[in-house]
Amino acid sequence: MTYNFNPGPAMLPPEVMQQAQSEFCDYNDLGCGIVELSHRSGEFDAVRERAEQNIRELASLADNTAVLFLQGGASLQFAMVPMNLLTSGATADYVDTGPWSSKAIKEAGLIGHVRVIAGGKETGYTAIPDSAAWELDDAAAYLHITSNNTIAGTQYSVWPSIPDAVPLICDMSSDIFSRDIDFNRFGLIYAGAQKNLGPSGVTVVLIRKELADRVPDSVPGILRYTTHIEGKSVYNTPSTFGIYMVAMVTDWMKRQGGLGAIERINDQKKKTLYDLIDADDFYRGTADPGSRSKMNVCFRLADEELEKIFLAESAAAGFMGLKGHRSVGGMRASIYNAMPLDGVVSLADFMREFRRRNG
Amino acid sequence: MTYNFNPGPAMLPPEVMQQAQSEFCDYNDLGCGIVELSHRSGEFDAVRERAEQNIRELASLADNTAVLFLQGGASLQFAMVPMNLLTSGATADYVDTGPWSSKAIKEAGLIGHVRVIAGGKETGYTAIPDSAAWELDDAAAYLHITSNNTIAGTQYSVWPSIPDAVPLICDMSSDIFSRDIDFNRFGLIYAGAQKNLGPSGVTVVLIRKELADRVPDSVPGILRYTTHIEGKSVYNTPSTFGIYMVAMVTDWMKRQGGLGAIERINDQKKKTLYDLIDADDFYRGTADPGSRSKMNVCFRLADEELEKIFLAESAAAGFMGLKGHRSVGGMRASIYNAMPLDGVVSLADFMREFRRRNG
Repeated sequence: MTYNFNPGPAMLPPEVMQQAQSEFCDYNDLGCGIVELSHRSGEFDAVRERAEQNIRELASLADNTAVLFLQGGASLQFAMVPMNLLTSGATADYVDTGPWSSKAIKEAGLIGHVRVIAGGKETGYTAIPDSAAWELDDAAAYLHITSNNTIAGTQYSVWPSIPDAVPLICDMSSDIFSRDIDFNRFGLIYAGAQKNLGPSGVTVVLIRKELADRVPDSVPGILRYTTHIEGKSVYNTPSTFGIYMVAMVTDWMKRQGGLGAIERINDQKKKTLYDLIDADDFYRGTADPGSRSKMNVCFRLADEELEKIFLAESAAAGFMGLKGHRSVGGMRASIYNAMPLDGVVSLADFMREFRRRNG
Repeated sequence: MTYNFNPGPAMLPPEVMQQAQSEFCDYNDLGCGIVELSHRSGEFDAVRERAEQNIRELASLADNTAVLFLQGGASLQFAMVPMNLLTSGATADYVDTGPWSSKAIKEAGLIGHVRVIAGGKETGYTAIPDSAAWELDDAAAYLHITSNNTIAGTQYSVWPSIPDAVPLICDMSSDIFSRDIDFNRFGLIYAGAQKNLGPSGVTVVLIRKELADRVPDSVPGILRYTTHIEGKSVYNTPSTFGIYMVAMVTDWMKRQGGLGAIERINDQKKKTLYDLIDADDFYRGTADPGSRSKMNVCFRLADEELEKIFLAESAAAGFMGLKGHRSVGGMRASIYNAMPLDGVVSLADFMREFRRRNG
């Protein structure tokens, strides 16, 4: 048995993978695959519409929020957000909770005025800063946060309370639809699909429509949210395979019972690993306890040589992708929605046994 | 038997589709699919490298040309080309041979000074304008052309001769690798993959490296060619499925004997349809004979009611996607590389029989 703990692109629900495989060359008895169909065909339109409706339903989205399927990942959103929303003379507030936040800040700084109002760089990004201490700007174009940080394994458990006039913008690439939250408190949410929603190459954007109207005339059409809202995500040819997979993954989420049910399993997965890590000093979690992520559990061993052995033995035992990000080292178990509790329990068993042999 | 004449996303080589299906859930005995692997894994890196080397080999690319796998399709390139290459104060020359050229011109006009030096809008884009008559600007930042025009079914058969100092930039989305040409005469070539190279969601860019250095400091990092040259197309997470499919399709092209062999088959396919269309007045080709595309054969019937019957009967007989673009009507047979000669011969048989019954 192989368990895939890759940080993204990551494992997808096995039943989704199997269905995609079975109909890969012949979708709906059409005699060709979904990837060989026009993005303007009735068959594909039904798939795109299903993906959108599933997302609306799972997130209980308000009608004034558009659901877009774009390309370019979160990295393109780092630029599109300020190009569209940070109009001349305004300032945007950013919170720097990890290297992905930093990249978003760097891109925005090329486009307009940016203020970093809180962060955690000095302390290795091991904690989400307490929003009670943030000095918010009532006149900010928006406040940008990163809900989950894959490299340090931290995640917001409480949303900042901010002035009504300031839209909250969130990069949810690594935890979207992993828990039951109020999606309507955000002005714009974006997420590369490759952790919880599907394969890489498709980006889901949820945007309150009136925000899109801010876009300056100088922004290229393809980089305007208004273009894709009007074009219903087929202004140009989208990743049809990506959208198809999002439709199937969100179908699966509904079959699981929705986000509440998914969150309960994710909570169990997180607890299974952290209970073991916290039991003694053999393993050490790197994220502050109050900021620990349900998606990425980052941990170390006291001895770096033993970490190499852990990684080699865990890989040999069928646990893939446990190596920590190259910038921080150590170990990381990425336990997105598709990772079953069984896989986490098996990993915990392996870790317990490894400790017994090496502790 | 179904034959898929969709204009793109389009049919892919059946043996590529079958191989992708067989290994969809278990790539190289890893216990997971290629879409579930990290874009930084050794396995995926080998795939990306293979796709690049195949492209270098098929196109006999010079070493100073980079091969990039981006996202966003040709539509994002319409913006990226001028953002990177049309520096302040310079002018770019464009040739308007169809709606896709027009979109490229519109985007570039938002970014800098653009001159449309030739076109065919007045005559319904039915011909490629003779480049001998173009008034070229020796100091232009670049000259932009669209090699094949899917909607009118036209294609350049002769490349314009232009001043050495002016880089020739070409949107080859709908005919890349369909014929044996000198790819090194171009400064930059871009192509959405979904006609000849793979599924939608991946864009191939071939760029002479020194051109990339022109980019102004104000351009967001994700939209700079330099970023992706340095990052070897994994600066951010690319469409791993798209790149994998490009690797497999270019493997297939090599097995066909390369671009010369592919072009000979494409010539036969084109001749098979046009010989029939030109045989009498029942069918009428809409592109000027000297500008006819090897990729998209656009034709009409004298009677519009009969066109509806043709489309219904051809669809019922298993010929998919023959409806012309909604902006021009009529019929269009898209015969990209993956369409076998058999499929075109079968369509010609159907057309001959339809003429016999209705002529």
